[in-house]
Parts: sequence; structure tokens; C-alpha cells
Amino acid sequence: MLLCDIGNTSYSFLDEERAYKESVHSFNPSSIQERLFYISVNTQVNAKLQDLPNWINLESYIDRSNYYETMGIDRVVVCEGVRNGVIIDAGSAVTVDVVRDGVFEGGFIYPGRAAMQKTYENISDALAYSFNFELNLDKMPKNSQDAISYGYLKTLFCEVNSYGLDIILTGGDALEFKKIFKDAKVETQLIFNSMKKIIQKADIC
Amino acid sequence: MLLCDIGNTSYSFLDEERAYKESVHSFNPSSIQERLFYISVNTQVNAKLQDLPNWINLESYIDRSNYYETMGIDRVVVCEGVRNGVIIDAGSAVTVDVVRDGVFEGGFIYPGRAAMQKTYENISDALAYSFNFELNLDKMPKNSQDAISYGYLKTLFCEVNSYGLDIILTGGDALEFKKIFKDAKVETQLIFNSMKKIIQKADIC
Repeated sequence: MLLCDIGNTSYSFLDEERAYKESVHSFNPSSIQERLFYISVNTQVNAKLQDLPNWINLESYIDRSNYYETMGIDRVVVCEGVRNGVIIDAGSAVTVDVVRDGVFEGGFIYPGRAAMQKTYENISDALAYSFNFELNLDKMPKNSQDAISYGYLKTLFCEVNSYGLDIILTGGDALEFKKIFKDAKVETQLIFNSMKKIIQKADIC
Repeated sequence: MLLCDIGNTSYSFLDEERAYKESVHSFNPSSIQERLFYISVNTQVNAKLQDLPNWINLESYIDRSNYYETMGIDRVVVCEGVRNGVIIDAGSAVTVDVVRDGVFEGGFIYPGRAAMQKTYENISDALAYSFNFELNLDKMPKNSQDAISYGYLKTLFCEVNSYGLDIILTGGDALEFKKIFKDAKVETQLIFNSMKKIIQKADIC
């Protein structure tokens, strides 16, 4: 089975076990002949795919009434695949979504690592540090690098832990955040696993 | 008594009760003849002031050994004036400092409102909202504006409340943050009040 998750910059494919990416600028989706299932947050790519009957949009198999209107389909799909947990998707943004007994309770959006680092840099040259993910979260910082790392990470940690749910980490920076959320489960292919569950449930394979 | 707090963009004066600002680019410090006390985080302005004997730098009257080397003198001075509390200075950055029984425990730096808003905007046009400071923090968000507002504000709220100390708000955005930290005390002239305490203690008035 071929699966595809389309973002703002790339097509992420999963071909059985093999994961690979193609650029949204250079890749031609009509070069694929086989039937495949996709989700997409990219409206320009969506327009191209409408005329390709072998590209099947999984969005139409999901009941979105549980979610909010402007919530990205990638977040929705991931929540559909979890029964109880906090899902942290750490990419260019960090989305944090809470699912309890299979019901989406809500979620929030926090800046991704690179975006936040740039924010501090732009505020002052004196704050132009990389984040220290090995920071001791039990100790108030006494140097500039730890002061921004704590500001970025401890605040998030405090909030996420308050839910008392298992934490699932996914996205490109999942392993960095695992250093902070030590008990979290890393599931790099969470989105594809959730897509598979939806396909199975809809019996469209 | 004339007091001055010099930042990266302006000289902030307090002349008895009257507070006013001058731009660091256009203001000429030698235009002031009377004796005044200042602190400054601006190294360029510092150089100018060294030849003006009526400008008295309060930094030399403070024992910095309790603090860390790169900590801005404005943060240090504010901490010197507090015996027990969390001080949130909400400006271009939000600094959060903890003082217990007169001892500085440490502090962290969080992005200011404008900087953080820009961060979300830069991540995606779909996140280009103003923050909703009237947000209900007890409810997980279900729309994009609340999702970024909660990401910015609730995480900070969670961490700051965990200290179990009184909260003092200062800085240009103090009144905005007061909507979130409802029990906090707003002290817009905290820096000047702390400067006065230092002057009194050093007996240099």
C-alpha cells in the first residue's frame, strides 16, 4: 500500500516499509500510476490532485465534526489514531493535541524549535543560542542559554504534564523533545499508522 | 531626585513623579546638568556617560555575585527590590525572575507579545492572529486563535503558578498579562522603586 502525507514543502510517502520525500515544487503527482491514499494541507497540490483518480483523499472518510474547522487534516488524522494520549507533533510548529477516551478535547500550537530560536535571536543578539535540550528542568536557570531553553521547554513541559496522559511524540524533532519528555513514546510514523487505521475502518483497501 | 533606566531604544526618566522617555539616537545626555542616578544595558550609551560625572551608575552599588554574569542590570535591580515574589517584566522579551527570602533563585526568558505573534505569523499565514488575552485557560482550545494564544499564555501561566509565590507584573505589556495573571500586582515603576531602595541603602542621595 502506498500512502502520502502532503505538507507545505514536501510529499512524504510510505511505500510499505520505505519512507521517502519529494519536493512539492518539483514532483509531478501524475508520474504515479498506482492507487494511493493521501491527506494534504497544501491547497495548491490539492487542486492538482483532483483530476487524478488514483490519488484517493482520505479526508472524505473522516468525521470532522469532532474537530474545529481550521484544524489541519494532519492533526485530525493523528488524533483519529489515538484513544488516550497527548500527541506532540514537533515540526516547524509544535502542535499539542489531547484525546481522551477517543474524543478530541482540544489542542494548542507552540512554535517549533527553529522558529523559536530565531525569535530569541531577533529580540537580542545576547539571546542567540541553540536550545539546551539536556537542561535540568528542576533548577531555575542562571545563565542566558539555559534561561531561553527553560523559557521554551519548561513552560511546555509544565502544561503537557498537567494532563496526566501518556505522551506520544512525532515529527522531525521528536527525538530532541524526547530528551525533555523522557517517558514519552516516539512514533515517527504516527501519521501513516493512523492513515492505515482509517483505511481499515472504512474498508477501502 | 532624577532617575534614568537606559534600554536599547530609549532613556526612561523619572523626575520625582513624572515619567518620560527620550530616544537613544537623538537625546544628548550632556544636556542634563543636575546629578542623576542611572542603570543601563546599552553599551554604546555607557561609553558616552563615562565622561559625565553627574551621571552616577548605580551598578557599582550592587553586589552582582548573587546573579549571573550576562544577566541584564535592569533585571538585577528589579530583583534587588523584591523580598519574595515572581517578577514578570513583559516587554520585547518577557523575563521571569524568582526571589525567595531576598535570594535570587534564577529566572528565564520568554518571547514578548509582539515577537511571539510574529513567530506564529512566520510559521504560517493561517496562524496570523493577535493573541486573545481573555482566553479561558481552563478549556483546551478548539480554534486557531485560541490555539496560539493558549500555546503562548497557558504554558507560561502553568510554569509561573508552580512557584507558589506572589506575582509582580511590570513592563509595557503588564496590563495585558494582568488579564491572565489575575491575582498579580501591577507595578509599572518597579525598576525606579528598586533604584530608590538601592540609593537609600547605599546612602548616596
